[in-house]
Amino acid sequence: MNAPASEFELIDRHFRRAPRHADVRVGIGDDAAVIAPTPGMELAVSVDMLVEGRHFFAGTDAEALGHKTLAVNLSDLAAMGAAPRYALLAGALPDADEAWLARFMQGFRTLAERHDVELIGGDTTRGPRNLCVTVIGEVPPGAAITRAGAHPGDDVYVSGALGAAALAVRALGGDVRLAHDVLARVRERLERPEPRVALGLALRGVATAALDVSDGLVGDLGHILERSGCAAVVELARLPADPAVAERLHGADRDVALACLLAGGDDYELCFTAPRAARERIDVLARELAVPATLVGTLERGHGLTVLDEHGRPLAPLPASFDHFG
Amino acid sequence: MNAPASEFELIDRHFRRAPRHADVRVGIGDDAAVIAPTPGMELAVSVDMLVEGRHFFAGTDAEALGHKTLAVNLSDLAAMGAAPRYALLAGALPDADEAWLARFMQGFRTLAERHDVELIGGDTTRGPRNLCVTVIGEVPPGAAITRAGAHPGDDVYVSGALGAAALAVRALGGDVRLAHDVLARVRERLERPEPRVALGLALRGVATAALDVSDGLVGDLGHILERSGCAAVVELARLPADPAVAERLHGADRDVALACLLAGGDDYELCFTAPRAARERIDVLARELAVPATLVGTLERGHGLTVLDEHGRPLAPLPASFDHFG
Repeated sequence: MNAPASEFELIDRHFRRAPRHADVRVGIGDDAAVIAPTPGMELAVSVDMLVEGRHFFAGTDAEALGHKTLAVNLSDLAAMGAAPRYALLAGALPDADEAWLARFMQGFRTLAERHDVELIGGDTTRGPRNLCVTVIGEVPPGAAITRAGAHPGDDVYVSGALGAAALAVRALGGDVRLAHDVLARVRERLERPEPRVALGLALRGVATAALDVSDGLVGDLGHILERSGCAAVVELARLPADPAVAERLHGADRDVALACLLAGGDDYELCFTAPRAARERIDVLARELAVPATLVGTLERGHGLTVLDEHGRPLAPLPASFDHFG
Repeated sequence: MNAPASEFELIDRHFRRAPRHADVRVGIGDDAAVIAPTPGMELAVSVDMLVEGRHFFAGTDAEALGHKTLAVNLSDLAAMGAAPRYALLAGALPDADEAWLARFMQGFRTLAERHDVELIGGDTTRGPRNLCVTVIGEVPPGAAITRAGAHPGDDVYVSGALGAAALAVRALGGDVRLAHDVLARVRERLERPEPRVALGLALRGVATAALDVSDGLVGDLGHILERSGCAAVVELARLPADPAVAERLHGADRDVALACLLAGGDDYELCFTAPRAARERIDVLARELAVPATLVGTLERGHGLTVLDEHGRPLAPLPASFDHFG
């Protein structure tokens, strides 16, 4: 057995690397990183904290967790239309398990490199497992896609498919039984979400509002409605449900399927709005990126979200979104 | 009793404010904040995670903790010579205790406003208490003070006084007995450290290297020596010991006093190096800022740190610095 690694040995072995980009003037290993962002760009900055037992199960594969920890943050940048550039990683770990850390960083780095994100800083301490990532991205002045720019008459879109991650949580918790291969597939969606970075960039100048669906469509679309001062009517039949969720919409598990589809978090798809005139452009860009973008409803004057069921009747009550203090 | 607050209600009540500065294009409440930093400036970015039971005692006054959570981060920017601009706060809390949160944010905001720092983003979740702050500051191109710029022949300085915070930890843990008023004073140093922001800014172009003493002088100065490729000789008698530490250097508690002075973390003073030619300039700026800057030793060729005792003999072994995985 080797002696337990010190905090600084851990940092040296697992976090510090020579800066890959010239704009990183000072990388990991000083009191702060120093960056020289692209002149004239605005910066989008976001932070997300993932707690063991809350955001991920104890025993989650470390490599998948490394991926997800960064993915949920890149998803926030994607929702702003920002190009990811830098990340900082702070982590509390119950022990100095280097094998775990190496696998975690492998997942983190593989995703980071795919999006050309440089890890510029961090902090490591002992404590109940908690991972906190800050990401910084760039966006041209005024081009960030906020939650506040939607207008009555705009279309509402959802990328990819919804509900798989929430279904996986229910299956892992024993509430739902899934075939082995189905569970493996939805669990992959839960544990290794793909941030919609390319779609977010393509939506600059097209989408009027956007966010990522992290807490469930009802609650998240609700944020756009509230911030933009609109109402929305969404059709259940149009929602891009994951196949395993879709097939449960018409049977004994309908309530579970509705909850996964409408209030299930963790899919990290984008929900966005755009004027009707942009329909063809959105179809083209979605096809070019090979990311489904499904038209699911429309914005109206007023406030609140109406989801129409298969018979055109409003679903009531709507399943509630995930609330960390609920 | 009111109903428990939801995550979004907590954010609205305690975190969201209208942006105070025009360079904050999008503040709290979207997927990411958007900032337009001062053109031509480089950005210093740092993150620190504070864990209950590790970095602070359970039951620490919430207002003091709010102060300290930001202070330790501003201290990192100070050590780079960067002007603090923005902060993001992610926190795991065991419950939605709004009175606690209000007091915490009062401490955080009071310090933030004093340094004109704007809270631009955050994340709130349930979990074992853990506070993670990211700060962003500005520094002119090439002006950041790193750990790597020191040269043999440079002087070594320490700001303020060392050892009080570590003595407070020992007293609170029952290892040392302190008079009531002394404990109150050193505890204040532990719980409400003042980041040396103005000193850090004044040291731009003067200091060749700097860092904040967060883990203890031996270890922290060691980082400068390692990164700059120097040795250092420091005189114990010159070190600016807190009075309560100084008076214990010559009695039964000498080992404790040495440990607090040389290896005690949490004082958040600056340790910096500068050429001999800068002595007068440093005396002047320290006087103008009313922050003591004490010349404690010199850099030499070679490697390693030597601390000479009151008789000019090397202290050996040197007390070890704090290690989160030690």
